[in-house]
Amino acid sequence: MHNFDFHNPTRILFGDGQIERIGKLVPSEARVLVLYGGGSIRANGTFDAVMAALAGRTVFEFGGIEPNPTVETLSEAIALVRRERVDFLLAVGGGSVIDGTKFVAAGALLDADPWTILEQHAKNVRAALPIGVVLTLPATGSEMNAAAVITRKRTQEKFAFVSRTVYPQFAVLDPTRTYTLPARQVGNGVVDAFVHVMEQYMTVPAQAKVQDRFAEGLLLTLVEDGPRALAAPENYDVRANLMWTATLALNGLIGTGVPQDWSTHTIGHELTALYGLDHAQTLAIVLPSMLRVRRAAKREKLLQYAARVWDLRTGDEDARIEAAIGRTEDFFRAMGVGTKLSDYGLGRDAIPAVIAALEAHGMTRMGETGEVTLDVARAALEGAA
Amino acid sequence: MHNFDFHNPTRILFGDGQIERIGKLVPSEARVLVLYGGGSIRANGTFDAVMAALAGRTVFEFGGIEPNPTVETLSEAIALVRRERVDFLLAVGGGSVIDGTKFVAAGALLDADPWTILEQHAKNVRAALPIGVVLTLPATGSEMNAAAVITRKRTQEKFAFVSRTVYPQFAVLDPTRTYTLPARQVGNGVVDAFVHVMEQYMTVPAQAKVQDRFAEGLLLTLVEDGPRALAAPENYDVRANLMWTATLALNGLIGTGVPQDWSTHTIGHELTALYGLDHAQTLAIVLPSMLRVRRAAKREKLLQYAARVWDLRTGDEDARIEAAIGRTEDFFRAMGVGTKLSDYGLGRDAIPAVIAALEAHGMTRMGETGEVTLDVARAALEGAA
Repeated sequence: MHNFDFHNPTRILFGDGQIERIGKLVPSEARVLVLYGGGSIRANGTFDAVMAALAGRTVFEFGGIEPNPTVETLSEAIALVRRERVDFLLAVGGGSVIDGTKFVAAGALLDADPWTILEQHAKNVRAALPIGVVLTLPATGSEMNAAAVITRKRTQEKFAFVSRTVYPQFAVLDPTRTYTLPARQVGNGVVDAFVHVMEQYMTVPAQAKVQDRFAEGLLLTLVEDGPRALAAPENYDVRANLMWTATLALNGLIGTGVPQDWSTHTIGHELTALYGLDHAQTLAIVLPSMLRVRRAAKREKLLQYAARVWDLRTGDEDARIEAAIGRTEDFFRAMGVGTKLSDYGLGRDAIPAVIAALEAHGMTRMGETGEVTLDVARAALEGAA
Repeated sequence: MHNFDFHNPTRILFGDGQIERIGKLVPSEARVLVLYGGGSIRANGTFDAVMAALAGRTVFEFGGIEPNPTVETLSEAIALVRRERVDFLLAVGGGSVIDGTKFVAAGALLDADPWTILEQHAKNVRAALPIGVVLTLPATGSEMNAAAVITRKRTQEKFAFVSRTVYPQFAVLDPTRTYTLPARQVGNGVVDAFVHVMEQYMTVPAQAKVQDRFAEGLLLTLVEDGPRALAAPENYDVRANLMWTATLALNGLIGTGVPQDWSTHTIGHELTALYGLDHAQTLAIVLPSMLRVRRAAKREKLLQYAARVWDLRTGDEDARIEAAIGRTEDFFRAMGVGTKLSDYGLGRDAIPAVIAALEAHGMTRMGETGEVTLDVARAALEGAA
């Protein structure tokens, strides 16, 4: 196990009815900005529940944060925060809204172009406004971590930043608020959480038994309950297990003390930036093919994954590995997420631009050992054509 | 899954060499009290490493905190804190030292007899001095939780309290600092962590899949690496896995949203208070017998435990349950911890005093459903005679 420093200060309020507790957690004198996305929270009652809980406070609204939130949109929110002297941000939504809120929280206190946060890997971030979260879409884990991914539309760039200053103070996870999600978002969320776990687990071995078993426990839960969420959207226990799993998939816990890969995400970000695919779609395309390309380096963990997640424990080792990767693809497709570029109308001719973008962004040594070069990335994409 | 509120603010610094980072974490102007136990930390170099890291600060010492720390001893530390205007407490040791430090941290700021903290379940605790921890014995999880167990020698009473004010600010977990532990303490620590997990896991089912799988992951790690720590005391990975497992066994994570039992601990505390047995010895006596007595109520989880922890998946269900309990006893004995009262020179005549003490302390409806009455407790103890 590698040395590590783990410190996650976010408070989680989990369960049916917890939104009303926001009234105790947001300071009564706060000037609050409620940030959200496309407006589904207005249709399903979540917005009203949040507003009721905030009663008595000065509340502003900023809707329309898009999937893959852009600096162009978020700059308007930063202007609103400054103009109205907002001092508390409440994100109501999924990962895009939360990530966008983190960018606003840090950008509003920055005396520079906020895009420099991405360019400087948040080294110029000294402080951020306090953040609360009401999660409506289990997927990214952003509700309990210090990371955000932001896109610049103008230049078709998508980058992540990490800063301890943007850990949410609290996050409300109410599984009933996910009942009305469209199937596409449920499928994407499950695939996203699954690949988050894989980026931290499916690496070279590190003798970190607890992290491995926690990761496997999350994967098994996603495999069992993901399809059930599509089949029975109002099963509380299923929704609760998925919601808590997605949070734990990327709150730092399973990533402590182990090597991490993240090449699938890095390549996927370019696919989204260039071709507009959903984040989870890009992960479903890249991951299985990348596992095939890197099966030698990841052999020991692939066999462990085959055994513990897919119960493939006997027979030829290479056949077990291939079967485990195939089961992974089947699972993504069962969640409604295609695993080939062609599923999204893209051919091999889409690949060179991705490689060029990776090169332009300096992403030439990816993966847990740096061995995911541009050639390896190209091979992975060609395997998914 | 039940609703829950999870918020664990303790920072973990894990790995070889992390003690020196204390120098960055304890304020440079602090008046520090270093609390420890029997003095083994002086023999093995840990004390010197801590003192070197604290260089430049005003440092006081309080040694001699005993296993099952007593209010009688800790009151002297409280007097020292007040006399010397100490404003930071650094616990260097295992669960007893950390628990004692928590009591000192709260007691020093209390305008009343500190024992009232136990009598009032910490309802009278409003604040506590900041606490740091250097863990030398993986076992209790106290380094990353808000609980402490304190004994009053005069009245032979042992009680727990919980207060958010006593979460350690940080805990240093350096596996190399556990290499010199005596086998008895290693065995006790593994059994203690194992039973912590079982108190939160082996209950009536709650459809909390992640908590279940995390708990099983911790149990499997203890079963695999516990005996290896006895056989090869200086295997870093083994020590690291055990150390992180013991912390995660009782940092709140696996207990969120699920029913909890704790009757084994409650009965065990009386055995320690009356007869001086090590804490882990009392758990090894009570748990297996209690599982037999309550096998009907816990049937579903016992079968899950048999399958996932002991790989007992086929054959008669009752035989599987009995085999799983038997394997649990074998494991405790393999760690050098006897599972019968007679292993410690106690006969059936020791039981009535335990039942009387439980009754005197109002412990007449224990367990996750309150069904562990004094009769059930007696049956469990008689089964371990």
